[in-house]
Amino acid sequence: MNVVVTGGAGFLGQRLARKLLARGALSAPDGRREPIERLVLLDVVPASDFGDPRVRVIAGDLSDAEVVREAFSAGAASVFHLAAVVSGQAEADFDLGMRVNLDASRLVLEACRASGRKPRVLFTSSVAVYGGELPPLVDDRTALTPQSSYGVQKAIGELLLGDYTRKRFVDGRVARLPTISVRPGRPNRAASSFASGIIREPLNGEASVCPVGPDLRLWLLSPRRAIDCLINLHEIPAERLGRARSVNLPGVSVSVAQMIDALRVVAGNAAAQRVRFERDPVIERIVGSWPSAWDVTRATSLGLEGDIDFEAIIRAYVEDDR
Amino acid sequence: MNVVVTGGAGFLGQRLARKLLARGALSAPDGRREPIERLVLLDVVPASDFGDPRVRVIAGDLSDAEVVREAFSAGAASVFHLAAVVSGQAEADFDLGMRVNLDASRLVLEACRASGRKPRVLFTSSVAVYGGELPPLVDDRTALTPQSSYGVQKAIGELLLGDYTRKRFVDGRVARLPTISVRPGRPNRAASSFASGIIREPLNGEASVCPVGPDLRLWLLSPRRAIDCLINLHEIPAERLGRARSVNLPGVSVSVAQMIDALRVVAGNAAAQRVRFERDPVIERIVGSWPSAWDVTRATSLGLEGDIDFEAIIRAYVEDDR
Repeated sequence: MNVVVTGGAGFLGQRLARKLLARGALSAPDGRREPIERLVLLDVVPASDFGDPRVRVIAGDLSDAEVVREAFSAGAASVFHLAAVVSGQAEADFDLGMRVNLDASRLVLEACRASGRKPRVLFTSSVAVYGGELPPLVDDRTALTPQSSYGVQKAIGELLLGDYTRKRFVDGRVARLPTISVRPGRPNRAASSFASGIIREPLNGEASVCPVGPDLRLWLLSPRRAIDCLINLHEIPAERLGRARSVNLPGVSVSVAQMIDALRVVAGNAAAQRVRFERDPVIERIVGSWPSAWDVTRATSLGLEGDIDFEAIIRAYVEDDR
Repeated sequence: MNVVVTGGAGFLGQRLARKLLARGALSAPDGRREPIERLVLLDVVPASDFGDPRVRVIAGDLSDAEVVREAFSAGAASVFHLAAVVSGQAEADFDLGMRVNLDASRLVLEACRASGRKPRVLFTSSVAVYGGELPPLVDDRTALTPQSSYGVQKAIGELLLGDYTRKRFVDGRVARLPTISVRPGRPNRAASSFASGIIREPLNGEASVCPVGPDLRLWLLSPRRAIDCLINLHEIPAERLGRARSVNLPGVSVSVAQMIDALRVVAGNAAAQRVRFERDPVIERIVGSWPSAWDVTRATSLGLEGDIDFEAIIRAYVEDDR
């Protein structure tokens, strides 16, 4: 079977690719396990192919219909649609966000529909689809009330994937991701970039600026568990999901102060002292609008697992990425 | 001030236009009452201009950027965006629905944004944004769970209008319309077309087929009250609406059997006996997924009024349209 990963050069895309190559197989649209013969990694910059002959790297703009056509030229039984303009950037550049997060998502869905094979499509959504006055318990069926352009574009992606699934054009699954922490590498333009930076930079002996107050609570998931959840959600038989295709992935709810306390436990006081607070009202408004936790009953019943606590997340980062 | 009405040749568009011309003025973006100097009626077929020199009729495809540019060439302080491919047709022709209900809506929003005047934009949404397992009380903040392509496209329009409002590109207001009954004229391709047909045709001495069972409950609003609500919602100061720009308009909740009973009271037994039941599972599925009532607390507190009962709706139809 052929698998397409959009955002395949990104941090999650590359990690997913490695895991898929190691697994070697996935459930095909008919539910039978099939070997992965071809893995297309599509991104605006060239992805690593890991020296694996199954990998085909395509570098190009996902909002260019020609590029999408090329990526799907050999067909696709499974699509992991991870590509997105991140929250801070989509807020600063509205048109870019609409072009990639909405228009390109439509091109991907249309390519899937045109294939006629009803591929499984795993789409990553986000905490950012929620916001404003939230009910005491946020769950998979809570109203989507995004307070950022990124959140609006993700919510629209969810609605489209739902309708394409209902129309039997695709077999869609939406993973609503908590904030991913700890991401390796450098800061990016996600409003939540600091949720990795305040751990990663101090572990590297560098200073880090935290743009939100110590009491702000975040809902976090490690990259390791996130990738497991994406693959597991892909593998669940359609009939177990029913009509409701958006699943809130499990997270751990921690305040920024608790994150720094955990850093102190794992890496000592000197590391913890490398975090300096300097508030940024734009970031505070966006991240503060997201839920700091949500009900995980459905995810758990589907066998999707999060992390034990934030200390475990830091230790996983040290193990996997340093 | 200039006003643009999309769907201006449609039944609601023409009725709105007549009412706006009679009023002669609306609240401009700055809140001050201004005379309507120019009323653009845009639709795929030519609208009536009522012989009024303020009216400019444009016939063209709303999903054609050139047509939208022409409609907005003189600027617009207010936009009533009513144009849509109706529910039954959007379900049968997915691509047409996406092109008009989504792509054309984006062209309209972009034209408003480009004007730089932050126009008031009144967008008509629908009961069809709800569906599936609904909570006992549906209100303005209930999760949008559309079960039809039309409903999905309307929900996306709401999300976009919300974000354009938040970004201060426009001052948006969404009227979620109950099913409009009694519409004059002929049946259309809305799944709910029968909700007018089973009253209108018998009053004309014609037979009418009802594609749903007598127990199905509908949430109805007369054209007269709907137009009043659209204009009144346009006139409400932005600060009274706050962030939540979607308002569920009031309706009356009646079963099909009760509708026919009311017809019997108004027009006699012979009229009521012209309705024949012949179930259509596609229509039954779509219309049956919509809420049969919703909470009207917010609409009422904003001064938006519905009808007294279904008998009053029939009498208003006889008065206005026959």
